[in-house]
Amino acid sequence: MTESDLPVAQLTPGRWGDPAHPAELPAAALDALKHLGIHRPPPPAAQPEARPGATGRQLQFLASVVGPQHVTTDWNARWSHTRGYSTTDLLRFRAADTTDVPDAVVYPATHDEVQAVLAGAAEHDLAVVPYSGGTSVVGGLAPNRSFVTVDLRRLDGLLELDEISRTATLQAGVRGPAAEALLAGRGYTLGHFPQSYEGASIGGYAAARSSGQSSAGYGRFDQMVVGVTVATPRGTIELGRAPMSAAGPDLRQLFLGSEGAFGIITSVVVRIRPRPTERHFEGWKFETFDAGLTAVRRLAQDGPLPTVLRLSDEVETAVNLADPDVLGGSAGGVLAIIGFDGPYNQATADVLTAAGGTNLGEGPGETWRVGRYRAPYLRDPLLDEGALVETLETAAFWSRIPALKTAVTEALVGALPTTPPLVLCHVSHVYETGASLYFTVVCAQTADPITQWRTAKSAASEAIAAAGGTISHHHGVGTDHQAAYVQEIGPLATESLQTVKQTLDPDHVLNPGILLP
Amino acid sequence: MTESDLPVAQLTPGRWGDPAHPAELPAAALDALKHLGIHRPPPPAAQPEARPGATGRQLQFLASVVGPQHVTTDWNARWSHTRGYSTTDLLRFRAADTTDVPDAVVYPATHDEVQAVLAGAAEHDLAVVPYSGGTSVVGGLAPNRSFVTVDLRRLDGLLELDEISRTATLQAGVRGPAAEALLAGRGYTLGHFPQSYEGASIGGYAAARSSGQSSAGYGRFDQMVVGVTVATPRGTIELGRAPMSAAGPDLRQLFLGSEGAFGIITSVVVRIRPRPTERHFEGWKFETFDAGLTAVRRLAQDGPLPTVLRLSDEVETAVNLADPDVLGGSAGGVLAIIGFDGPYNQATADVLTAAGGTNLGEGPGETWRVGRYRAPYLRDPLLDEGALVETLETAAFWSRIPALKTAVTEALVGALPTTPPLVLCHVSHVYETGASLYFTVVCAQTADPITQWRTAKSAASEAIAAAGGTISHHHGVGTDHQAAYVQEIGPLATESLQTVKQTLDPDHVLNPGILLP
Repeated sequence: MTESDLPVAQLTPGRWGDPAHPAELPAAALDALKHLGIHRPPPPAAQPEARPGATGRQLQFLASVVGPQHVTTDWNARWSHTRGYSTTDLLRFRAADTTDVPDAVVYPATHDEVQAVLAGAAEHDLAVVPYSGGTSVVGGLAPNRSFVTVDLRRLDGLLELDEISRTATLQAGVRGPAAEALLAGRGYTLGHFPQSYEGASIGGYAAARSSGQSSAGYGRFDQMVVGVTVATPRGTIELGRAPMSAAGPDLRQLFLGSEGAFGIITSVVVRIRPRPTERHFEGWKFETFDAGLTAVRRLAQDGPLPTVLRLSDEVETAVNLADPDVLGGSAGGVLAIIGFDGPYNQATADVLTAAGGTNLGEGPGETWRVGRYRAPYLRDPLLDEGALVETLETAAFWSRIPALKTAVTEALVGALPTTPPLVLCHVSHVYETGASLYFTVVCAQTADPITQWRTAKSAASEAIAAAGGTISHHHGVGTDHQAAYVQEIGPLATESLQTVKQTLDPDHVLNPGILLP
Repeated sequence: MTESDLPVAQLTPGRWGDPAHPAELPAAALDALKHLGIHRPPPPAAQPEARPGATGRQLQFLASVVGPQHVTTDWNARWSHTRGYSTTDLLRFRAADTTDVPDAVVYPATHDEVQAVLAGAAEHDLAVVPYSGGTSVVGGLAPNRSFVTVDLRRLDGLLELDEISRTATLQAGVRGPAAEALLAGRGYTLGHFPQSYEGASIGGYAAARSSGQSSAGYGRFDQMVVGVTVATPRGTIELGRAPMSAAGPDLRQLFLGSEGAFGIITSVVVRIRPRPTERHFEGWKFETFDAGLTAVRRLAQDGPLPTVLRLSDEVETAVNLADPDVLGGSAGGVLAIIGFDGPYNQATADVLTAAGGTNLGEGPGETWRVGRYRAPYLRDPLLDEGALVETLETAAFWSRIPALKTAVTEALVGALPTTPPLVLCHVSHVYETGASLYFTVVCAQTADPITQWRTAKSAASEAIAAAGGTISHHHGVGTDHQAAYVQEIGPLATESLQTVKQTLDPDHVLNPGILLP
């Protein structure tokens, strides 16, 4: 099965992923939780209590734009559009926390309908939150005032495929698997496979600068985008007449990562590539994370890069590989995964061998491939069992990576003194000048796991800033990272972005409180 | 001789390039000019008449920041900082046109001095034009009010070289050859070799989104930059903690291409690569431009790309190659140049062969390499002889390239009815999704060659817009492209940029009238 065969998952509110494929914890994991002192907490609270939705005049306006059958105040629809999928979001679902519930959900079908909703929003006292896949893990769907959700799922078309230029114009609501299926029918692939692939959408990829597991070969989503169409309350902006230009700043890069605060991205023109006819995934072992880091840096800087390149540290390797035989039967060591879309490249393997790597063959590679979207599914049963589990990520230049990894790990351990955590880490994306680090934290929940995590996350964020990393490599800013983001770019850059927002969204109807204070 | 051995050229006001190496037209060229009906015009006008410079209070302020020995109102210094090197700039030099002469030239030595000049500029009624290499060909040094020039040549240091991350922090005033020499001493190269290489500087590369002749291998300058420090009237902005980030819009891309309108870039952190130990340049022949276009597109989309990849059309091939034997003795055909930094890659050659190309060997490649910075030198003697010669460039997605080339050529021919031009064209930079086209126009001067060219350029710009190209792939906006630029990005995007400028430069002291209206 390849990515284009995967169905679009219908995410369940409050639990990650396709409910047809729930994750169960293996017995060994349940045992391990007991050793960590993790015990099942009391069952979740009662069902959420429905809150009143949008008013008649607001609904009349929305219905006049999209048709009455495409506006709803149905409680289940609203509850399923509430917040995203961070661990604190999941915990708040369990606690039946109905703050952040939209007053209505509206389903426009075209760019012009999106545009019309935005143009009339202020007059009808509406704030709007664009909703693409709904997979934000940084509070990107929780504005600071009441709002209606603009769900883009009906903008689900492949508008144009230019085989000469190798570009596709995809609408914002196309989910990952649907995009691959649309392109596969013509022999092409986008090559963008983030962990949220089953649920996330083109518009969200663009608005939050997503990066996929094949980024070593295909690049990040923002590197694939060559054109963007944005609806703003004041009108439409269309950008991108060429792959690159010297006509002023690259304004595409101002809207990529703007997280709906400047406008709603309704379609993008993306670079596509021929669909590979073969794929290879392989595991490699290195004695230490540092040795593996040198090896993946060598590939990132001197090539040849594979399509997928990941490197787990000692803890993640030990936790994820229940069977030590996978690592050649010896204790210790770290696991790297490499993958090729297309023919196997021996030159890549030669670099890894020269850097001290041992080829473990396709077994670990296939294991990773098959489970590549499954990790977040485990969060829900882990939370059920009383574990606190969450991820965070950053990126920095290569010379800062070792100290950054140590600093974040120590900050997390230090901030969770009564519930000593396991901190797992891997290099998830590489560049010539640096890399990203992806951390997974597991510990016992306290009686107030939301505060528990926020305290830990705050410590990690401070450590990231102090060690010279960015507050997010591919999750985005949302509300969770806003303070760290403002600190990272500084007051003048922040003010510049605020003036752009003021220009395009003078009545602050777009995602108020998200990205920018 | 490699690029790092080239000396920094001391450009002569009003004539391109190093005066130690002036260009002379070959006899065949002089004959050809006669056939085109081109005759030597009257000699240029008298010497320019000196105009008064900055006032005492302004000079006192500037001297208080940088020291009195680093401020001058000397006429020669001011005249040599007037405008850039477009053909209309050269013609206005010849006409002793003293509009656009700065009132003073100030030479700060540090970021803090630049910052202090900007912070006090409004109070002293000063507009400032940052001056890096001075090689603008789009009117980027000609603001719409009186001004002083901030020449950055004393910011000429390599501040840091991070061998682990493969990054170098270079100050804005480092000229191309100086940057290569600084890096070569440590075994590295930047790999950025624009035609203005001998004179242009790091700050200008960044501020105007330069692209070099080795862009197929090294990328554009904006793709090399991972960090940027900007002085603005309201303070300093520092951006870039990682190669890539999802922390909001990529603000580096807001300052790259901002042409001094938002602030003065004082240093950048750029990706560097090991200096190649071998280089290869080769010529290839294709029967037609269309056949060559398909071949270079194949390489751009499926690889493997060489370091240098250029394709001349039939007219440019015929004009530039006096000796038809270079093309295998047969008439017709077009010339492509490929170059490798590092080992020769047979796989690249195989793609060209499969696409119908004929390998002409290293001869044409070496000829191109040796003359790679010389073409602009020919403009001055051609102008002396009565020819009007100028270049313009654009970029678009591949599917639009053929029609774009035809449209621009026809627009130029149509706009120069009394002086039928030769229009030469080549593909100068390639991407997966598109390419740039670089045009050279040669015809007889009329009595008013400035108006003559402006009319032709205006027609070409309209043709570019209508055919879906960008108004500039690597020359920038300046003042010459401002109207077309505003049309290209639209009123809302323009207004957004104006509000950014208003935020960072509330008194409009920075490059007033350049980039934005």
